[in-house]
Amino acid sequence: MFRPKSVAILGASTNEDKIGGRPVRYLKHYKFAGPIYPVNPNATEVQGLTAYKSIRDVEGELDLALIVLPAALVLQGVRECAEKGVKSVVIFSAGFAETGDEGNEAQLKMSRIAAQAGMRIVGPNCMGIAAFDHNMIITFGVSMLNMPPVLGPVSIVSQSGAFGSVAYAESRQRQLGVRLWATTGNEADVNVADCLNYYVEDPETKVVMMYFEASRDGVKLLAGLGAAKKARKPVIAMKVGSSEVGAEAALSHTNSLAGSDSVVDTVLTKYNAYRAYPLDEFFDIGYACTSGLFPDGNCLGIVTISGGVGILMSDYAVTLGVDVARLSEAAQAKVREIIPFAGTRNPVDITGQAVNQPEILESCLDIMIEEGEHDVIIVYFAGMTSMDFLERAGLLRIRDKHPNAAIIVSVTMEEESRRVFEDLNYLVIPDPTRAVRAAAALMQMGQGYAKAERQAPPALVKPVIAPAEMVNEVEAKRILAEAGVPVVDERLATSADEAGAAAAEIGFPVAMKLVSTDIPHKSEIGGVLLGVVDETAARDGYDTLIERATAAQPDAKVDGVVIAPMISGGVEIILGVKVDPAFGPVVLFGLGGIFVELLQDVTQRLAPFGVEEAHEMMREVKGFPLLDGARGAPPADTDALAEALSKLSQFAHENAERIESIDINPFLVMPKGEGAFAVDALIIPSEPS
Amino acid sequence: MFRPKSVAILGASTNEDKIGGRPVRYLKHYKFAGPIYPVNPNATEVQGLTAYKSIRDVEGELDLALIVLPAALVLQGVRECAEKGVKSVVIFSAGFAETGDEGNEAQLKMSRIAAQAGMRIVGPNCMGIAAFDHNMIITFGVSMLNMPPVLGPVSIVSQSGAFGSVAYAESRQRQLGVRLWATTGNEADVNVADCLNYYVEDPETKVVMMYFEASRDGVKLLAGLGAAKKARKPVIAMKVGSSEVGAEAALSHTNSLAGSDSVVDTVLTKYNAYRAYPLDEFFDIGYACTSGLFPDGNCLGIVTISGGVGILMSDYAVTLGVDVARLSEAAQAKVREIIPFAGTRNPVDITGQAVNQPEILESCLDIMIEEGEHDVIIVYFAGMTSMDFLERAGLLRIRDKHPNAAIIVSVTMEEESRRVFEDLNYLVIPDPTRAVRAAAALMQMGQGYAKAERQAPPALVKPVIAPAEMVNEVEAKRILAEAGVPVVDERLATSADEAGAAAAEIGFPVAMKLVSTDIPHKSEIGGVLLGVVDETAARDGYDTLIERATAAQPDAKVDGVVIAPMISGGVEIILGVKVDPAFGPVVLFGLGGIFVELLQDVTQRLAPFGVEEAHEMMREVKGFPLLDGARGAPPADTDALAEALSKLSQFAHENAERIESIDINPFLVMPKGEGAFAVDALIIPSEPS
Repeated sequence: MFRPKSVAILGASTNEDKIGGRPVRYLKHYKFAGPIYPVNPNATEVQGLTAYKSIRDVEGELDLALIVLPAALVLQGVRECAEKGVKSVVIFSAGFAETGDEGNEAQLKMSRIAAQAGMRIVGPNCMGIAAFDHNMIITFGVSMLNMPPVLGPVSIVSQSGAFGSVAYAESRQRQLGVRLWATTGNEADVNVADCLNYYVEDPETKVVMMYFEASRDGVKLLAGLGAAKKARKPVIAMKVGSSEVGAEAALSHTNSLAGSDSVVDTVLTKYNAYRAYPLDEFFDIGYACTSGLFPDGNCLGIVTISGGVGILMSDYAVTLGVDVARLSEAAQAKVREIIPFAGTRNPVDITGQAVNQPEILESCLDIMIEEGEHDVIIVYFAGMTSMDFLERAGLLRIRDKHPNAAIIVSVTMEEESRRVFEDLNYLVIPDPTRAVRAAAALMQMGQGYAKAERQAPPALVKPVIAPAEMVNEVEAKRILAEAGVPVVDERLATSADEAGAAAAEIGFPVAMKLVSTDIPHKSEIGGVLLGVVDETAARDGYDTLIERATAAQPDAKVDGVVIAPMISGGVEIILGVKVDPAFGPVVLFGLGGIFVELLQDVTQRLAPFGVEEAHEMMREVKGFPLLDGARGAPPADTDALAEALSKLSQFAHENAERIESIDINPFLVMPKGEGAFAVDALIIPSEPS
Repeated sequence: MFRPKSVAILGASTNEDKIGGRPVRYLKHYKFAGPIYPVNPNATEVQGLTAYKSIRDVEGELDLALIVLPAALVLQGVRECAEKGVKSVVIFSAGFAETGDEGNEAQLKMSRIAAQAGMRIVGPNCMGIAAFDHNMIITFGVSMLNMPPVLGPVSIVSQSGAFGSVAYAESRQRQLGVRLWATTGNEADVNVADCLNYYVEDPETKVVMMYFEASRDGVKLLAGLGAAKKARKPVIAMKVGSSEVGAEAALSHTNSLAGSDSVVDTVLTKYNAYRAYPLDEFFDIGYACTSGLFPDGNCLGIVTISGGVGILMSDYAVTLGVDVARLSEAAQAKVREIIPFAGTRNPVDITGQAVNQPEILESCLDIMIEEGEHDVIIVYFAGMTSMDFLERAGLLRIRDKHPNAAIIVSVTMEEESRRVFEDLNYLVIPDPTRAVRAAAALMQMGQGYAKAERQAPPALVKPVIAPAEMVNEVEAKRILAEAGVPVVDERLATSADEAGAAAAEIGFPVAMKLVSTDIPHKSEIGGVLLGVVDETAARDGYDTLIERATAAQPDAKVDGVVIAPMISGGVEIILGVKVDPAFGPVVLFGLGGIFVELLQDVTQRLAPFGVEEAHEMMREVKGFPLLDGARGAPPADTDALAEALSKLSQFAHENAERIESIDINPFLVMPKGEGAFAVDALIIPSEPS
């Protein structure tokens, strides 16, 4: 698709400024190497090329066909392409799934035709594709004419055509070189994830920028993101439709169901992809990633000519979670030797004196690089700065001594100077707060890559199969326990005698509860007894509970009564699993009570994951201090909790096809060393019986 | 200071590129109208002007003197200026309070000299001042030479000199016209708040942009912000030093103690000033405010050529709290008549077809303005757009029909076109997410202005004087009750008999507690009795408590025992007052328990305020649903709480000089209609006795 030897255009226009004319113009203008076949029944010639009445008339093999026909004629065009044996078609035409049922039907038809013929489709309702290294540009936007491409390491895929255009134009304006470019529109066949996978495999693509409204193929997206992470190819993602309004607009735009935004976040985080929100962030971080520098650390060094801007940068860095680490006393003394009134802590404020004595910068930066332990250093200069000045400030020399230091030059400079700096692998980001954000992104990604390479994949447990039908809570807990998730020490009794014996075995007082999948809210019918004090009470309790069940719901199947110890203390946790239709099982974690109910204070991860990740999850919730011994309570057994979370994730991973969800509420975490266990649990099978 | 008739430069240099030479160059270059007196003992001529050996040699009155001398000579210079009767001096020289005690001493000296002579000082350690409408530019930065000023409605003040330079350069690059400009540096005398007040009074200044690290004069800042709000002159503030690192850097930069960041937020919010964080936000919002359009509403309309970017804008708007309100069905039908496949809900997606038929835009925008009820409308076009196209799209005509609609044109266009649009009072912000942020800011400010004009100032209660010394909790509550803050129905008993009678009067069971300012933690010594069931128990209880007090702390002064009803139910609240040294009393509100302790879920307002504001405060905390009947509880008496908050704020306001803080913990809010009251309270006087 990106490497066609020949291209046909169905609906090619003689007017080079019409939608059907522009692609012909592009291919000619940029000297596409293979033959171009304009198809137009009403012309013999199109823009100086021989025109064909029908694609059938074209001789030889056809790698790629573009369809620019009215919606009503598109299906016929697709059919003809399929018959001709075309390998891929790109369809600009709109009027399909985004317009409603009828359009959707037509789109499904074209998908079927193509699938049967082994032909790939890009679109419909897209703005085309381009391989700038191959002089192959198939689009109807004007930006690629107005601004000729600059070849570079970035490949772009956008579900939205217009956004793809914007992305091209913005990248181009920032001199961010682009290699491959695709818009996928309604995604009758080829989707954003396909392009991602292709880009990751392309050896010349170093950075992937991706815009999407929905993920039609979660597995493929995960595969692409996983491969990108492994290859340390940064992916900058803009996923829109996070708001209700946005999601509604996405539906009418490319017929996309935006899906759960928090799951998308979880997925992108897991694979170390960077999710950008405002537009400039998308391009800034894309640009920053071209440096290929992803330091495994979180320390930012700042050398600034303006104390005020230094403070501003520090504040902003801290809000982004970055450590503006203090320079050592020895290093600070060295800075003071060079410039007595400097701020030396970090930011190092070389003051306006650097305007008269640019060499101050070189000396201070040297100290910063050699003595500081900063992962990224930002050098800030106010106002437009000449190359002459920058040379005198030693910025070019510095690279001889420190070729690999990650340095962002936050300086407004001429285009030409910028290229000199970029060739030395400096990043040039004039806006100082945006420079800080870029530094934070590089470090965040660097830490993510390093963590992935450091962390062993979670140990596999012996396979435990989830039940295909709804089971009672005792059985659910038994299965979870088998999978390694600890549960409360409880016994199922099916007679008063058994109940008495079980209670005695556990030790008094005990709690007793009816077991029946037919009675969902047991406490409402008096199906729970608390603080049962002796064996006689336990026997009587059994009979009472069974009587109450019969009275309330005579036809309910009752499996017995479960007996458990009365527990005091511990922190109440809620654990859960939801199997996302696109991305598979997601494990949720949150503190019980108001934390989940009122504050939605939960976090989630794609399954499976190890204990290190589980510990990270805990620290992400606002209520974490409650586990960590806040308010005078003893610290909770977070190790046991982490182990349980990891095991739960593995169980969910293995049973992704069998389950819809798992709810463990509450899960009690006892003080350190005393363990943790599920008190109540439910496993919902994927096809409820 | 901004309008001098004559200027002297102490330390004027013959080299026009030295720090002492540039100001002379500027004054000459921009044809300052009055006489310029360079003072330099080693020259007879400076840049073509007669030089003076000493300022004493200058004939006639001197409005303004600039001091560019080495730190050691500055004091002498200030003395000579004072003797000469100079009205204001600007001091570039660094090496004063920012360097430590010695420098601070010297700076205090110069303040005293100036104060005695009635002379004002700007600086030291500043980069000067400018009045572009007066051709008066006194600085040593180069940006005002490289980029000649464009006169406009914005006045800038920056504590940091370099930031002031950046602000000038950035504004200039964005063609944002500037009128007055000042940097205040160490603020030995004139500070940011002085300049703010001056700018607000300047009739030609429409927008104030302000950077500060600390507020040295809270009262003056409040006055300036208050006047600006009244005059609907937007203030865009960048307050740095919010992080610990930043605050430390501020100290070494301009010797500023950054102060409590949350109080600054509270102040800026109260006066409807816009606090910007990243740098581009500062300039974007400054620019947006030049439109003078501050709609009192929160509805954003979007017309976009790119569905994808429309979704992106919607998502972003929602995260900013903006309502992307749905267009009416009738209006949507009209849009569909023009362009059948359009997204019509809002965003209105006019699709790529608008490239071929630009008139679509005019028709859709017309519908949007006439039928929608949007407070701001953003029109988004991808890529560089020509004036010809924009004219064909009807954007110039639209203004004839709708001269006052707040419209942001998010289009990349030529500089010249931009000016045409701006003359029609369109805002031009090419980046669509930044356009959304600007729209949100204008609406936020518009709502703030409207609210201020709508809200009656809080009714004044009869003055209640706070105690000058520490009083016991019973007395504290009595005073609060007098001020209108309801308190629990309690009695102070000073004998066992009184205790018995009081308990009987209240009704059993009661709670009893020792009253003594000498015993801070009463429960630790057994000084609290709960659930006292009858009169005898109450009498005995009195004796027990007194005995315990004597045993634990024989020399403690005990005022008696307080008797109160045992209360169940209600939501626990924490109310507080802290008198900020710069800004006066701040009222805090938060829910008790984990909300305050763990989640820092509190909000605050400057005192005084009315009940409407108090209701807003409640809705700001995350725990608000607990007051609003979450989790099955009855809705709490928020009206009583609001009344109490407002009254507390008035009491604090009246007693700002007398108190340091007030702690009310807990304050119980009962179900709707049942009131609310302080259970425990403490008033800390400003000078603890």
